Amino acid sequence: MYTKRKPCITLVGAGPGDPELLTIKGLKALQSADVILYDALVNTTLLDEASPYAIKIFVGKRANQHRFAQDEINLMMVQYAISYGHVVRLKGGDPFVFGRGHEELEFARSFDIPVNIVPGITSAVALPALQEVPLTRRGVNESFWVLTATTRSGQLSRDVAIAAQSTATVIILMGMRKLPEIVRLFSQNGKGEVPVMVIQNGSLQNERIALATVDTIAEEVEKLGLASPGLIIIGEVVHLHPQFILHTAQNHYQ
Amino acid sequence: MYTKRKPCITLVGAGPGDPELLTIKGLKALQSADVILYDALVNTTLLDEASPYAIKIFVGKRANQHRFAQDEINLMMVQYAISYGHVVRLKGGDPFVFGRGHEELEFARSFDIPVNIVPGITSAVALPALQEVPLTRRGVNESFWVLTATTRSGQLSRDVAIAAQSTATVIILMGMRKLPEIVRLFSQNGKGEVPVMVIQNGSLQNERIALATVDTIAEEVEKLGLASPGLIIIGEVVHLHPQFILHTAQNHYQ
Repeated sequence: MYTKRKPCITLVGAGPGDPELLTIKGLKALQSADVILYDALVNTTLLDEASPYAIKIFVGKRANQHRFAQDEINLMMVQYAISYGHVVRLKGGDPFVFGRGHEELEFARSFDIPVNIVPGITSAVALPALQEVPLTRRGVNESFWVLTATTRSGQLSRDVAIAAQSTATVIILMGMRKLPEIVRLFSQNGKGEVPVMVIQNGSLQNERIALATVDTIAEEVEKLGLASPGLIIIGEVVHLHPQFILHTAQNHYQ
Repeated sequence: MYTKRKPCITLVGAGPGDPELLTIKGLKALQSADVILYDALVNTTLLDEASPYAIKIFVGKRANQHRFAQDEINLMMVQYAISYGHVVRLKGGDPFVFGRGHEELEFARSFDIPVNIVPGITSAVALPALQEVPLTRRGVNESFWVLTATTRSGQLSRDVAIAAQSTATVIILMGMRKLPEIVRLFSQNGKGEVPVMVIQNGSLQNERIALATVDTIAEEVEKLGLASPGLIIIGEVVHLHPQFILHTAQNHYQ
């Protein structure tokens, strides 16, 4: 006999791409899911961990092509929880780092549906680390600043200009299309020589990187054909990348 | 017959405290470890995942009591890898976020020992999320800044003064002893009313929090008896904590 499960929602961060960078808690949530609503940046091999009877729905957005608006996703999440029981909302990286997870939490709570949160590894921190670039290093710097380049209005965030004046390692998400504009701000602050790394498809088999300086990175990215989505890391710590000297030397003697 | 394994080292981030917030990749590393060198902030229940034959050594530091100096840890890591095979260096949070993981990587590489990196969930991001405070929220802010309060010289990092002028959510690690000094900098920048949260033993059963404003948090932390290590979160997003209004109202009518 079929017993309907009590509605509940788990917001799960899937991590930066490599499916093994999901947490144990996230894996358990997937395994007990009746419905999974997953984003574009989620590695779909994770869906194999769920029950074959679980309903799996892609609700991703890619660039400006929104398959579902945020309001629709919120509503689906609640409706599926009421109809089927445990809904896992599987989001790339961490649900609360530029992930709109808090809006989903609030919406679900307004229907008195219990919500659990399972943090994920944010690509902002993990992808530089996997490239052996620490965001902080004793004697080099004491902080890192994570920004999204693109605001609700589509303009470049004003925080980028402030960040360009700071001593922090600066990590910029959703900034690939605005890269020339971003590096100009850093260059204007006398940081033309500061090293920069761009990472595409981070933590995956097809990961690609570009290494250069503030003044040369835009050209390098274009030459290598790196595209969105990508992560931009600006700061002295990028010097620590094992191929940094090689890359910049090559550029120099071209 | 005993076959000696080839030396290798895996730097593993154990996450913020809850053992289920370890990644699947981190779990697999633990399960194949011959030796585990673990820090003070690592949840020791994770050691149960390792082989009973694995050598487990606590190399933690607590406040100013260093059991082992960093140089000693580096040397142990290499010596055990050469003698026993796979050494897992298990570190709280993420190995590369104020974790000195990069120094360990460099040291091991100088002996030509292969090193793998397994990122962990940094408490700076996960602990606010578990308290339902997003580090970013559309329409509220567009960035977050993670700092350590304490520099190598023991002085308060100059970045804290710059952060006090920014619009980012500011997350400060290792700052509990300098809390009055930190909030003074924010107050001087006209931010006396900005909400603040302090988290102790985050993600664990005995988690405790303090909620107040820049001008009242030091008193609140003292009243509740919260101590090091703790995480300090300063920014408008702290308003979104479900108990924020209640807490501040109580303070107001005391």
